[in-house]
Amino acid sequence: MSQLLISEVAPRDGLQSIASVMPTADKCRWIQALAEAGLKEIEVASFVPARLLPQMADAREVVQFARGIAGLQVAALAPNIKGAQAAFEAGVHKLTLPVSVSEAHSLANVRKTHAQAIEEVRQVVALRNARYPAVAIEAGMSTAFGCTISGAIGDDQVMRLAHAVAECGVDEIGLSDTSGYANPAQIRRLFRRLQQEFGGKAGGAHLHNTMGLGLANVVAALDVGVTTFDSSQGGIGGCPYAPGASGNIVTEDLVFMLEAMGYDTGIDLDKLLAARQILANALPGEALYGHTAAAGLPKNFRQAASA
Amino acid sequence: MSQLLISEVAPRDGLQSIASVMPTADKCRWIQALAEAGLKEIEVASFVPARLLPQMADAREVVQFARGIAGLQVAALAPNIKGAQAAFEAGVHKLTLPVSVSEAHSLANVRKTHAQAIEEVRQVVALRNARYPAVAIEAGMSTAFGCTISGAIGDDQVMRLAHAVAECGVDEIGLSDTSGYANPAQIRRLFRRLQQEFGGKAGGAHLHNTMGLGLANVVAALDVGVTTFDSSQGGIGGCPYAPGASGNIVTEDLVFMLEAMGYDTGIDLDKLLAARQILANALPGEALYGHTAAAGLPKNFRQAASA
Repeated sequence: MSQLLISEVAPRDGLQSIASVMPTADKCRWIQALAEAGLKEIEVASFVPARLLPQMADAREVVQFARGIAGLQVAALAPNIKGAQAAFEAGVHKLTLPVSVSEAHSLANVRKTHAQAIEEVRQVVALRNARYPAVAIEAGMSTAFGCTISGAIGDDQVMRLAHAVAECGVDEIGLSDTSGYANPAQIRRLFRRLQQEFGGKAGGAHLHNTMGLGLANVVAALDVGVTTFDSSQGGIGGCPYAPGASGNIVTEDLVFMLEAMGYDTGIDLDKLLAARQILANALPGEALYGHTAAAGLPKNFRQAASA
Repeated sequence: MSQLLISEVAPRDGLQSIASVMPTADKCRWIQALAEAGLKEIEVASFVPARLLPQMADAREVVQFARGIAGLQVAALAPNIKGAQAAFEAGVHKLTLPVSVSEAHSLANVRKTHAQAIEEVRQVVALRNARYPAVAIEAGMSTAFGCTISGAIGDDQVMRLAHAVAECGVDEIGLSDTSGYANPAQIRRLFRRLQQEFGGKAGGAHLHNTMGLGLANVVAALDVGVTTFDSSQGGIGGCPYAPGASGNIVTEDLVFMLEAMGYDTGIDLDKLLAARQILANALPGEALYGHTAAAGLPKNFRQAASA
């Protein structure tokens, strides 16, 4: 079966929502272990002011370390032009720019209207084009499937903003279930439309597990041809500005499901579970999620793919 | 969209795997509340010797109470002819007979070879035909997707045993993921084949959440036309003889997902969550699972079905 890309976001999305600050040396060891387990893209940091997110104060150092890992696509998030500038300077291969479909969430999260958010994207793309042409930019459409503040989000609303963002010149448009409210029917509908309207610019799925539907939504996304999935080791993360929204889909469970289904993720589950242990040791007392780690891998489970 | 049947199994599958015994009066209040929430079929008890499962010692009383609830299909499980006889006498509308595809699991669970298990099914059907013709019999093919003892289970192995059981004259053949090892590709493959080979006798899906894939497997089963799903309030349950296998899919999360997708389950989520409170109060200290109860229902979430 076709190969998929799993983009690990725990060092960014996970660590930014955990109060304690993980020491830089631990982060680097952990990222190294994740890469050794076979993860080919890792979002390693967020470029935001250290006074807002002290967990990300070492973003530059972490990016520079990660760039030394052969074959790894090093991604980072930036909420604005200032963060993007710092990320480019640090040497990211890929930049993620979140843009909230819910304007209420955008105002709460980054204090920007849609017009202001789009203007920021335009500036970031202009800077990239002028000075860092090798860096890929993906816009992540946050709250695309529902918002804790505004409730349900219309498909048309998502697509309208996505088109405005695409016109700024980003390389990819991904859809993020920031609230974890997406359902499989909605996932199929919206990703199908994304592919129809954006072709090669249609990006991946960033899914949360708030309502327990994370992996069900992955199955729905696979059905309509999505091949890139964000996930988080131990399921850590969730948007700190969206109350009640917690828990990315768990990388270990995602990889188990995909491998059991016969997909080739290129990831070694035993090494992935070993990397999880580094995370657990570095953040004692923090809750890690995931069924695979708790239940263990079923005996000869790969046989179920072709039984 | 089409209507689905959710068969609530917590009073049987859930309570039999919890050490403390729920008082009969609490069970009855809880079953009443589940029916009032809109559940149309409830597996209320297991007819097994009270010395083995004291939690089920009041099976007869509970069945008789449940029969008094208008419109409710009262189901019970029996592992053998003796239990079936007691269930028929108590007045069940439907009897579930588990038959393990894994012979090792069958021997550990009910101390029967396949030949002995099939002979028992034959006797139960003969008794039903002779004296209780109105009672429906569903055979549940346990460990159909993998076994904690034997590991992977071949599709052909499942179908061979299912045909032998069908030839005994049962009304329906369901597939049970006793171990919780099923993956969505396997679910689609096996239920498609069940429908092709058994037509109108093809039954529903009994899914566990051991590996966190329960709802993902529901999505896969829906894709191939499965319309009946067992689930358990609070996710309680799992086979007590399959080590490490725990947690049915959670009724509240299942109903949330289906309703968000636009299916009509006929179930009132607020009343379902109220019934869960009765369970929580009756079993203080027992772990209940489920994301919907923890996160709460998203604002106007039904709009996502048609956005």
